[in-house]
Amino acid sequence: MPLLAADQIRQTAERALVRAGVPAPSAVVQVDLWLDAELRGVPSHGLLRLERIVQRIEAGLADPHVTGIHTWQGSSYLAVDGRQGLGPIVANAALARIQERARHSGIAIAAVANAQHIGMLAWYAERVAREGQAAIVLSTSEALVHPWGGRKALVGTNPIAIGIPTGETDPFVMDTATSVVSMGEIHDRANRGQAIPEGWALDADGNPTTDAEAAKRGAIAPFGEAKGYALGLAFELLVASLSGAALGTDVHGTLDTTRLCNKGDVFIVIDGPRVAGLSAYLDIIRSAEPAAGFDAVLVPGERGRANRAARLTDGVVIADPVWARLQQLADGPIQQQQHVLS
Amino acid sequence: MPLLAADQIRQTAERALVRAGVPAPSAVVQVDLWLDAELRGVPSHGLLRLERIVQRIEAGLADPHVTGIHTWQGSSYLAVDGRQGLGPIVANAALARIQERARHSGIAIAAVANAQHIGMLAWYAERVAREGQAAIVLSTSEALVHPWGGRKALVGTNPIAIGIPTGETDPFVMDTATSVVSMGEIHDRANRGQAIPEGWALDADGNPTTDAEAAKRGAIAPFGEAKGYALGLAFELLVASLSGAALGTDVHGTLDTTRLCNKGDVFIVIDGPRVAGLSAYLDIIRSAEPAAGFDAVLVPGERGRANRAARLTDGVVIADPVWARLQQLADGPIQQQQHVLS
Repeated sequence: MPLLAADQIRQTAERALVRAGVPAPSAVVQVDLWLDAELRGVPSHGLLRLERIVQRIEAGLADPHVTGIHTWQGSSYLAVDGRQGLGPIVANAALARIQERARHSGIAIAAVANAQHIGMLAWYAERVAREGQAAIVLSTSEALVHPWGGRKALVGTNPIAIGIPTGETDPFVMDTATSVVSMGEIHDRANRGQAIPEGWALDADGNPTTDAEAAKRGAIAPFGEAKGYALGLAFELLVASLSGAALGTDVHGTLDTTRLCNKGDVFIVIDGPRVAGLSAYLDIIRSAEPAAGFDAVLVPGERGRANRAARLTDGVVIADPVWARLQQLADGPIQQQQHVLS
Repeated sequence: MPLLAADQIRQTAERALVRAGVPAPSAVVQVDLWLDAELRGVPSHGLLRLERIVQRIEAGLADPHVTGIHTWQGSSYLAVDGRQGLGPIVANAALARIQERARHSGIAIAAVANAQHIGMLAWYAERVAREGQAAIVLSTSEALVHPWGGRKALVGTNPIAIGIPTGETDPFVMDTATSVVSMGEIHDRANRGQAIPEGWALDADGNPTTDAEAAKRGAIAPFGEAKGYALGLAFELLVASLSGAALGTDVHGTLDTTRLCNKGDVFIVIDGPRVAGLSAYLDIIRSAEPAAGFDAVLVPGERGRANRAARLTDGVVIADPVWARLQQLADGPIQQQQHVLS
């Protein structure tokens, strides 16, 4: 797998998006989101996703020119119809509005439907927190997770990210799916011919499996058994009831190239969090004695941030097929495209 | 253990609080919160807590006459100094303000410091959801939970509750601590001389233990390993930064009778959630085929609600010492009290 300078990947990916019809400023934003995931070590939310967006644009399922239609439902509640715009373009436009509103009201929410995949939630939470506000970000997905005690996937992987300014150079940012692992990780194990740990997934018949291929056709477990299931289901209901997004197995459009995107995203921005004491508390955690089998007690988000710093200096390892496809989409011969929907 | 009518427990507990100086209307509210926990099967948040509040009132650590000082930080952000008032009295006063505000603004937040323990969060989330609004409730606690990979308790049990109207008779309500189990459950196992499962707790030296007595002096695990730890820590930082509450091992006052209460509570109310499709989706989950070893696929909160309905009809089993103490506090001879602080 090639080790590449981040800027080389960035420029290649931007060329690919511009060639697909994405305005240059939007290509910069969309690629920054994917590259940030690569830099932090979350390739499932990285440049792997570029080809699908290009195909969705070509199929008329994604519109790279829109930022969404904004309707204020109350002075601090922004309802956003994403009109199938690119995830970070629609999300950033909404976030800018509610960040400004929260400076006066103290809190504001944006509920987004009909945008493309918004990617790694930490990217948004970190930026808001760097600007001195707290952020809670929720998103739903295709049903990939089984209810605790169930056999079939009925709930999204429904991640949450929380960003909080701490008075340190970098804010606190946590970002986790409510599934025990991502479907991307299961695909990766399958591609390598590796087994998956017990407790990660069920097969297509709803029985426990350690076979990654079988798990691909089955369902992922919620993290933390009944508690993680309760959280994931709550996020599914909350996001849908606030944004008008679809629910459960009716959700489509972030993993395919044939259907409109109908999951939802919710952003809550809270103004004026106080940083007093936060850094001292985090230092107590960082310096705590690790348990047997651990090298250190970590603060969530900091390993990904260290990865990012190292890779910006040392370069990024990117999967061969992803890099080959990026180059082809950026600079290769133009292929015949088929519009599935208009 | 006696099986008692809910109303008998309610009236006895109300008498005990009124005798301790709690105004009758506030006693009704406080007892309803504790009794609801008993009815749902969460006795750790039930009438066990009454004696401590009586002692705290007598020690001048809890003030049964105040509802908190309200300061609007922005039009939708209510900062509340609880002035050591009773948890549900302070919380209800704040919730009434932000529920009304959210009807105009779409979303509003109350951040509460210096109130007594607010009890089971589902009680608040359910009421807000019954009134047609969505609720997110967070609270912090004494440090009882070890960071994932750590040896000592540095994080609160930091629960979250989410309530959402569904169009059904009852709203969706989930309520879970970010610890794998409550300290109350560990005390209960110790009282019965039972072992605890592997993975629940560390002993005072930070080593894994299945001895409930050793666990009482140690630390509880976060639920869901690193992910639950990340959530619990995020809630600790978010609640403290928004409310001014203490952090980590500086938190006191919900488990003792000697210190002022300095944890924090955050309520977010969101107006106008749409119920379309929610009940049909929940029915798909309820009717899903259960996995091996499960009788049914459950929707979070519904088992507790079924418990409550049954116990309102059939009576409530209450622990002998809790009932004996309730009767003594309500109707027994008045004992000499000592004021620890004034």
